[in-house]
Amino acid sequence: MKSVSASKLTILASSLLIASAFASATAWAAPANDPATLAQIRDSAMKEDWAYERLADMTDLIGPRLSGSAGAAAAVEQVADAMRKIGAKVTLQPVKVPHWVRGEEKAQLVDYAGRPSGITQKVVLSALGGSGATPAAGLTAPVIVVRDFDELNARKAEVKGSIVLFDVVFDDEMAKGGQAGKAYGRGSNYRGNGPRVAQELGAVGALVRSVGGADFRLTHTGNTGLVDGKRIPAAAVTAEDAMLISRLLKRGAVKMHLTLTPQNLPDADSYNVIADFPGTEKPEEVVIVSGHLDSWDLATGAHDDGAGVAAAMAVIDTLKKLKLQPRRTIRVIAWMNEENGTRGGKGYFEVNKEKVEQHFAAIESDNGAGRPFGFMGSVRPSMVKYFAPLQKSLDQIGAGVFDRRDVAGGADIMPLERAGVPSFQPLVDFTNYFNYHHTAADTLDKVNPLDLKRQVAVMTSLTWYLANMDENIGRTVVPQ
Amino acid sequence: MKSVSASKLTILASSLLIASAFASATAWAAPANDPATLAQIRDSAMKEDWAYERLADMTDLIGPRLSGSAGAAAAVEQVADAMRKIGAKVTLQPVKVPHWVRGEEKAQLVDYAGRPSGITQKVVLSALGGSGATPAAGLTAPVIVVRDFDELNARKAEVKGSIVLFDVVFDDEMAKGGQAGKAYGRGSNYRGNGPRVAQELGAVGALVRSVGGADFRLTHTGNTGLVDGKRIPAAAVTAEDAMLISRLLKRGAVKMHLTLTPQNLPDADSYNVIADFPGTEKPEEVVIVSGHLDSWDLATGAHDDGAGVAAAMAVIDTLKKLKLQPRRTIRVIAWMNEENGTRGGKGYFEVNKEKVEQHFAAIESDNGAGRPFGFMGSVRPSMVKYFAPLQKSLDQIGAGVFDRRDVAGGADIMPLERAGVPSFQPLVDFTNYFNYHHTAADTLDKVNPLDLKRQVAVMTSLTWYLANMDENIGRTVVPQ
Repeated sequence: MKSVSASKLTILASSLLIASAFASATAWAAPANDPATLAQIRDSAMKEDWAYERLADMTDLIGPRLSGSAGAAAAVEQVADAMRKIGAKVTLQPVKVPHWVRGEEKAQLVDYAGRPSGITQKVVLSALGGSGATPAAGLTAPVIVVRDFDELNARKAEVKGSIVLFDVVFDDEMAKGGQAGKAYGRGSNYRGNGPRVAQELGAVGALVRSVGGADFRLTHTGNTGLVDGKRIPAAAVTAEDAMLISRLLKRGAVKMHLTLTPQNLPDADSYNVIADFPGTEKPEEVVIVSGHLDSWDLATGAHDDGAGVAAAMAVIDTLKKLKLQPRRTIRVIAWMNEENGTRGGKGYFEVNKEKVEQHFAAIESDNGAGRPFGFMGSVRPSMVKYFAPLQKSLDQIGAGVFDRRDVAGGADIMPLERAGVPSFQPLVDFTNYFNYHHTAADTLDKVNPLDLKRQVAVMTSLTWYLANMDENIGRTVVPQ
Repeated sequence: MKSVSASKLTILASSLLIASAFASATAWAAPANDPATLAQIRDSAMKEDWAYERLADMTDLIGPRLSGSAGAAAAVEQVADAMRKIGAKVTLQPVKVPHWVRGEEKAQLVDYAGRPSGITQKVVLSALGGSGATPAAGLTAPVIVVRDFDELNARKAEVKGSIVLFDVVFDDEMAKGGQAGKAYGRGSNYRGNGPRVAQELGAVGALVRSVGGADFRLTHTGNTGLVDGKRIPAAAVTAEDAMLISRLLKRGAVKMHLTLTPQNLPDADSYNVIADFPGTEKPEEVVIVSGHLDSWDLATGAHDDGAGVAAAMAVIDTLKKLKLQPRRTIRVIAWMNEENGTRGGKGYFEVNKEKVEQHFAAIESDNGAGRPFGFMGSVRPSMVKYFAPLQKSLDQIGAGVFDRRDVAGGADIMPLERAGVPSFQPLVDFTNYFNYHHTAADTLDKVNPLDLKRQVAVMTSLTWYLANMDENIGRTVVPQ
């Protein structure tokens, strides 16, 4: 998941008008959204291991799936095969993706006040996606630490020729208090923008304190917004190492020897995997249910976002096993390149922008596989009441909350949401999500199989419900 | 800390007789163990940052201190200097220590059922101390997983030519339930003995699942009991990677490519740092208060055992600041080589074995800097009552528990304890200790300064009390 600032989003001026496209549908044939069918879907999902098996295939057999990697390519094949096997109509949509490859990465503090002769201190770090490289033998520069952009600007004169460390503490209490996304956003802002801003001021390298609340000397990678020709080396140091550097700076100047040798290669060929379950009555109308197939390279991307993909895949599997056919087309998408470019989401929108009004709704799961409490969705407030039967059914597994939001979708469906497509996402406990995602510890064992079943129940029930609704839920209005 | 099996310990037949050496001392001059002095010591310790500053110097300025390393040598100098500065009489006792140096370490699963072409799975691991090396280019072998030695023996035929993984799950519930030492002992038994036993059965490599309850893909190193000429490569894989391998083995055979290039160098010269505060009335009688100066190489050894050393050092500092002089000599020792040889402890005993009866008591802190609840000690049950005034004073800071045990000392004072010297250790909360110790995450930020103050209060009060006791606490009897 990437955090998105609501202020960057735009209202689609025509969004309310497009709503009329759905106004006619009112009386389709059974089976539809009757309580018995919803119960059947929910209970069937709670009994099935299929999604977990797909997640295990993805993480155990393939592992990391960074865009452009052999893992990503293998995952495209694996997901496409699995969806074909259950009878979905699979297409691979070509997308060109950034191709960044991690290299050697190491750092030592080679000078500081009080350093005994012959001693250097190791710093644990991981390059950020899009980072440039140091010379092969590394570079040595003084380190300065700043807490925010204001401090960076105030100390502009020191930045030139330095390695800048943005030491932004992850607010774990905020995360534990139910505001994990906000806590994450504070830190990831510096990860995304810090290196670029530091480069503009003449820094020769940029470091960020790893985002996340774990205190196990864990690096937290992610993309950074450097641009070609200005790619300085940029990495996330562990919280422990950020604290060490800050403490040593209180004793005097600190010099670091930094070696990062990632490569920014030409864009690579990849694909969105699109698997359709055609609708019986309105096949041209589409409900997307999705997750993103690419992951960061440090781990196997179980929570981020293997679980989302597996749960989306299981929507068709669950319905097929129950021999239920949707009125509208259900389109499972395993997006490529959410993590460092969102090329899959953008590419899909580009190809489908004339058909936006045929997208009844879109779902993307990209907050991990924590315990689901329900779902969030960006329908207009007046539409919430139409979801009561769905909520009632999901309430039986503790997942009946409908958290209406102005913006609800994941990054890949954001272009659709901005264009007015009501967008949804499972509402999950992600209190601890940011302690794992983008780290080496995002592995299969962290996914509770029961919670994944619950997510499949939520995703399948919601998808089915949307694909069969009589009511017109119209278009969404994303605030500016 | 290393766990020690009580069954390996021996009764010193003469231990009860030696007790008579202390029978005469009954009426020394003030200041002694009056409540006011004990309160003064306790309260002074609770106000001082000196121990934390020493710990910061050790971890921030030097870092890892594995025996034979530049860090260990620098730490000897640093501690000796600090103790000289506060007026202690410092001697460096030479000890020859094992000199093991970590090299490159990496592993991939290069074949397994269901592996897509071109895919390998990375395994995160750290070599164990004393591990042998693979060829520089690594070796490739099938992996077999066993849960215990019985299973290893039952599957003897498969071991030859294989890499054996001992997949022993750390019982975190046991640790959280107050039995962290026992939980640790279960796993560390396989770390210590597994590789040797596997080698004897023809294994070409041995892996253990990392001990400890953290689920952040963290390796937990430690020493393994391989012997020269039979040093196969041996490493700790993370719990996550052990689980991955076990899951893949359910699908079929698994092959690993393993590269470990540690070096076992000739023994190196090093030292115990011994800092005496001579007693006023019985200077020939000694109370040792100690921690071990060496650490593992993955982190800066803040809990294991920088904190123990710093707290021991602070005993003399606290008393000097209060202008209190002990009746018996207080001997602060920063032991060298607890982690992979205990050469410091053994060397001290060797040199002092004719003077064992002059050792009134010995304290070693090596369970980390968690919240202290009191102290444990291996006096005979009838002696416990003499410690009531000390307990009463420490109870004011929640550290009044005296947990009498048959064996209480750390590994370095074990030879003294076996020879009858009553041995003590702070009683601390070490519920989470094994999640950090021997890992890359054992860093200064994990030490709560308040808990370290409490530990200094316990160590100083206890040391002072022992150094001034009128009562004869006799000798201890370590059970067989």
